[in-house]
Amino acid sequence: MTDTRLDVAETLKDLPTWRAYDGDRPAITRTLKFADFNAAFGFMTRVALMADKMDHHPEWSNVYDRVEILLTTHDADGVTDKDVTLARFIDDAAAGMGVKS
Amino acid sequence: MTDTRLDVAETLKDLPTWRAYDGDRPAITRTLKFADFNAAFGFMTRVALMADKMDHHPEWSNVYDRVEILLTTHDADGVTDKDVTLARFIDDAAAGMGVKS
Repeated sequence: MTDTRLDVAETLKDLPTWRAYDGDRPAITRTLKFADFNAAFGFMTRVALMADKMDHHPEWSNVYDRVEILLTTHDADGVTDKDVTLARFIDDAAAGMGVKS
Repeated sequence: MTDTRLDVAETLKDLPTWRAYDGDRPAITRTLKFADFNAAFGFMTRVALMADKMDHHPEWSNVYDRVEILLTTHDADGVTDKDVTLARFIDDAAAGMGVKS
């Protein structure tokens, strides 16, 4: 994986559950809703283990059954393959818990 | 523990690391900085286990080594003993990891 900046719009074509961050820097975001807090935090734990292994960490928040995630690569000032890899892991983990969109 | 609303300013006298939330509802907040993501998420995991046991959950966000926490009791539209109990657990867990303020 490189830190080459990707075009966000192009990248999102292959990540249909993600959208462009409407903020001050290039990033992609996804909001996920789980059955309850236990499910939401269980999901976060899976993502945390992967993120720490990748040394590439999400910016995220949690309110009960909801998790909001923002992915960007600080060193590249944009979205890179690292974000795509973590986004795909997040999508797989969420799908495995029955989260559809 | 009851759902009786407490006076936020009075409550904060006994919670020196917390402050009143400057937002649209009565709540208390604390921001914590850890050694790294691993420490921050380890702390969050301790809090998550306690929160789920209490059935009283924080609103929180995490960016790498930082965790921002907001506590309020929705059913009471304010701060209650449940928030104080969880705040004290958070303080103890953070202190146990060397977080000072």
